[in-house]
Amino acid sequence: MVLVAARNPLNIGAAARAMSNFGFTHLRVVNTYELSFREARSAVGAPQLLQQAEEFSSLAEAIADCRLVVGTSALESRQVEQAVHPLDEGGPLLAGHLGAGKAAILFGSEKRGLSNQDLNHCHWLMRIPTREEHGSMNLGQAVAVCLYELIRGGALSVPPQNSAAATGAELERLNQSLLEALKASGYTQPQTEAAAAEKVRRMILRMGLDSSDAETWTGMLGKMQRALLHKKD
Amino acid sequence: MVLVAARNPLNIGAAARAMSNFGFTHLRVVNTYELSFREARSAVGAPQLLQQAEEFSSLAEAIADCRLVVGTSALESRQVEQAVHPLDEGGPLLAGHLGAGKAAILFGSEKRGLSNQDLNHCHWLMRIPTREEHGSMNLGQAVAVCLYELIRGGALSVPPQNSAAATGAELERLNQSLLEALKASGYTQPQTEAAAAEKVRRMILRMGLDSSDAETWTGMLGKMQRALLHKKD
Repeated sequence: MVLVAARNPLNIGAAARAMSNFGFTHLRVVNTYELSFREARSAVGAPQLLQQAEEFSSLAEAIADCRLVVGTSALESRQVEQAVHPLDEGGPLLAGHLGAGKAAILFGSEKRGLSNQDLNHCHWLMRIPTREEHGSMNLGQAVAVCLYELIRGGALSVPPQNSAAATGAELERLNQSLLEALKASGYTQPQTEAAAAEKVRRMILRMGLDSSDAETWTGMLGKMQRALLHKKD
Repeated sequence: MVLVAARNPLNIGAAARAMSNFGFTHLRVVNTYELSFREARSAVGAPQLLQQAEEFSSLAEAIADCRLVVGTSALESRQVEQAVHPLDEGGPLLAGHLGAGKAAILFGSEKRGLSNQDLNHCHWLMRIPTREEHGSMNLGQAVAVCLYELIRGGALSVPPQNSAAATGAELERLNQSLLEALKASGYTQPQTEAAAAEKVRRMILRMGLDSSDAETWTGMLGKMQRALLHKKD
């Protein structure tokens, strides 16, 4: 489970407690600034889980070894390009993928949820079926509800299988190669680069690459980029 | 939803927020002492629901108009006499009964959960499928998970029907009549009265009486009690 830009240590602690309640152990916390959450009193019964949480300064690093990345969002009036599943469909879908390698479930900050940039790291999104008039949940409660859905009906007892879906790190390398090749080719201009980066990220995710194909693509694009740079020289 | 002996106003506020998220409006709070929870900041987006919460000094009063009373419990190593359903079975069962009149879902205190006396007011119990090693959830999170299960799959859209299941108040009157009759008859002694009261409460719940039969029973027992007292005079 990945908490992105959570502000309140008590919510991080509460998330840890719910994880422990439902049998999840790996907590990752992404923050661009120092946040002392390791002693949060709200992690009742789960202080060790909180102590062992891993910290990252970027979401890309936090999901580098994950083969499936699922975002959560209240999606109040926000338009997104990713597929959105209601939790009771998304939960079993996510649980069913767990055999195929590490999966990450992302939760955003208390005030704003996941940013559009965060969402672009997600293969698809889940929405807790809250009321339209009051969609935004407390972070610790949202975590508890999602994890409950994941263990509901024992779906998580699926045995691990081998699979070659590309990891976040492999896709990140491919992203970078493609962007650099696009830049070197003049396809993107400095002023359009940021927007292109987000489009590219989503497009690559939609491709559903396995590790081997991702590596091949990265190699091909790296080759093109180097060739383009030499040509300019 | 009924919160029994909750100690932390922030948890009451968090419960109110989850209720609002999932479309529940009637909160009842049972406490034997004054507890100021109405301004709890944690009721983000649901201050009105919290303002309108009803306060009771006993559980019996809080469920007086309810025809179904369902308790929640982590049941760590506790033996109970009531039927216990895992949440994913109990939720639909409860949702299916809602058409038949008011139903109450009870949550106990943060430290101890519902007492055995509280449980004796329950027709049956639900258990959130937490790990045995760490079963106790944060109150606000437990509320969120249970309410999510109730609205999951749209089960709550069942239209109301008329039904004559006895209310909590009707059963309470029957309880009292039976206990007084037992006491007047010498069946119970002062030292066994409390234990008998709990047994009687459970037994009556198991009978699944409708309003009319509960009234009939109450009348019969009242008659016996009065006759017994006169005989003593």
